[in-house]
Amino acid sequence: MKKNVDKGRQTDLLIIGSIAFDDVKTPSGEVKDSLGGSAVYAAIAASKFTASGIVGVVGDDFKQDTLSLLQDNQIDTRGVEFAKGETFHWSGVYNDLNKAETLDTRLNVFADFDPKIPVSYEEARYLFLGNIHPALQLKVLEQLKNAEIIACDTMNYWINTTPDLLDQVVRKVNIIFINEDEIKSLTGLQNVFDAGEKVLSMGPELVLIKRGEYGAVAMGRDFMFFAPVYPVRNVVDPTGAGDSFAGGFMGTIVKAGCINEKVIKEAVINGTITASFNIQDFSFKLLLTASQEEIEERKQKLIKYMGM
Amino acid sequence: MKKNVDKGRQTDLLIIGSIAFDDVKTPSGEVKDSLGGSAVYAAIAASKFTASGIVGVVGDDFKQDTLSLLQDNQIDTRGVEFAKGETFHWSGVYNDLNKAETLDTRLNVFADFDPKIPVSYEEARYLFLGNIHPALQLKVLEQLKNAEIIACDTMNYWINTTPDLLDQVVRKVNIIFINEDEIKSLTGLQNVFDAGEKVLSMGPELVLIKRGEYGAVAMGRDFMFFAPVYPVRNVVDPTGAGDSFAGGFMGTIVKAGCINEKVIKEAVINGTITASFNIQDFSFKLLLTASQEEIEERKQKLIKYMGM
Repeated sequence: MKKNVDKGRQTDLLIIGSIAFDDVKTPSGEVKDSLGGSAVYAAIAASKFTASGIVGVVGDDFKQDTLSLLQDNQIDTRGVEFAKGETFHWSGVYNDLNKAETLDTRLNVFADFDPKIPVSYEEARYLFLGNIHPALQLKVLEQLKNAEIIACDTMNYWINTTPDLLDQVVRKVNIIFINEDEIKSLTGLQNVFDAGEKVLSMGPELVLIKRGEYGAVAMGRDFMFFAPVYPVRNVVDPTGAGDSFAGGFMGTIVKAGCINEKVIKEAVINGTITASFNIQDFSFKLLLTASQEEIEERKQKLIKYMGM
Repeated sequence: MKKNVDKGRQTDLLIIGSIAFDDVKTPSGEVKDSLGGSAVYAAIAASKFTASGIVGVVGDDFKQDTLSLLQDNQIDTRGVEFAKGETFHWSGVYNDLNKAETLDTRLNVFADFDPKIPVSYEEARYLFLGNIHPALQLKVLEQLKNAEIIACDTMNYWINTTPDLLDQVVRKVNIIFINEDEIKSLTGLQNVFDAGEKVLSMGPELVLIKRGEYGAVAMGRDFMFFAPVYPVRNVVDPTGAGDSFAGGFMGTIVKAGCINEKVIKEAVINGTITASFNIQDFSFKLLLTASQEEIEERKQKLIKYMGM
C-alpha cells in the first residue's frame, strides 16, 4: 500500500466513534464516570501526532469543561452532537487484565446516534471508523466520498450479529484494526496469518492484528511487520488500549502525509507507545500528559528491543 | 553477559536430557513410537549450527539405526547409556495446538537414569541441561566443573514438586529457558517482565522466555530483545518446539564461540527458526531435512518482518 496524500489543511483526520462515561474497576482500583469511548481514546492518542476532528454524540450531562479538554488537545469538537438525555455509559470490571467483563451498558443518547459530518470535514482524507454499528460506519462512508485512507475497528458483537453489514464495511476500507479473537471469528480461521490473508482478500490493503500483551502484527499483500508490546510493568486499566493504538497509528500516517512500509512501521510503533501510556492509568490520564520526549524515549527503547 | 570461550575442539556442546519414544496425536494425524525427548530435539536443532554430544539413557528396544541417525547429524552418542528394559515412552494428544495433554508417561529405564559424563566430555564448556529432574541436573553440574556457559530448561512439574532443588539449579546456571506459565509459577509474579527480573536476580545472566505462537523474549540485566514467532501456517505437531528452540540457540552460541548481545539476538532468531521447522511435521522430520539455505531464507524473512 503506497499512497501520497496532499497535506496542507489544518485537520485531515476524522474520527467517528463513541463518547462515553465509564465506570471501571481493575485490580488497581476503580473510577466512576470517567471520560472514555472509542472516538475519545483514539483522538487523544492521535493528538500526540496530529490534529483531528471527532464525530459523536453526548447527552446533556456532558460538561463544557470536558469539551474544552478535548479542544485543548488539537481535537475539533464541531462534530460532537448534543442530544437530549444521558451520555453513553459503560461499566466494566477487569479481574484478569486481559479481559473486560461488562457489567452494564446504557446506550442512552448513543442508541439513536445518527452521525452527521460537519461541512468542514466533508473533505477529510483520513477517516477512522471507531467501533460502532456497521450500519453507522456505512452511513459515514456515504457522506465522505473524498476519504482516501479509511480505517475501521470493530468487535465480536458486530461480527456475530451483523455480519453482512460488517462485510460491506470491510470491503470498503483500506485498513482494519482487529484483535486476534475477532479476526478468527470474522474469517472462521484459527491460524492468525491465514485469517489475515483472508481479510486482505476481502479488500483492505492493511490488516493490523492486535495481540494485547504480545504486541501487534501488520499484514499487507507483500508485507509483514511484527511489533512487540512495550514492556509495561504496572498495567492499571486496559480500557481504550485498542483505540489508543489505532489513534497513534492514524495520527502518525496523517502526520507523515503518505503511507508506505516505512510509515506503517513507524505508525505501528507509535500506536504501541500511545497504548502503553494509556494502560498505565485509568481513563487516558497518563497518555494525556505524556510529553513528546517521553513518547520518543519509549519509542527508541522499543526499537532497540526489536533491533538486530 | 559477555564471555569469550576458546574454540578449537571438535565438540564443545554437551546436552543432557530425555531420549524417548513418543505417541503423538494432533489435528493433523498421529504417530507411534517416534523418536523424541528433550536431548534429541535439542541436539537435532543444534546440529544445524554445531556438533554436540548427548547424555541420556535408552532401553534395549532402542535400535542401532536410530543411534546412527543421530551420529549422522554431528551428534556424538558416546554418552547414551543402554539399560535393561524399555526406553522412556510418552503419549500425548493436542486438541488445541497450544497445549499437550499427557495420556501416558512410562518412565521405564529413565526412572533410574544416573547421568554419567563420558571422559571425552568432561571438559565441555557449553552445557544444556534439558528438562529432567533437578537432582539429576545438579548431579551433572557436579561432574562438569569446567562448563563456562550453562543453560537449563525445566517444567511446571519440577517447579511445583521440587522447588528447592530447582532453586539450586537456577542459581548455578547462566541461561534459563522457561515458558510464560512456568516463569509465573517459579516467581509467583503475574507480570512476565517482573518475573524475568526476579529470575535474573536469582543468578542467571540471561532468561529466555518462550511464548509459543507469540515468539520469545530474551532478558538480561541491561538487555531486552523481542523475537516474533516465524509465521508458520501449518502447525502439525508442537512436540519439541521448546527443545528445538533451545538447541538452535545453544548451537548458535557455540558456533559463535562467544556470547554477547549480537550473538544472543542471532541465537534467539536461529532458535525461532529451528522451532518453526520442528513444528511443521511430526517428530523432527522436517527439521532434520531443513537445509542451510532454507534456514537462512526463513531467518532473513523473519529479520525483515521485525526490522524498522
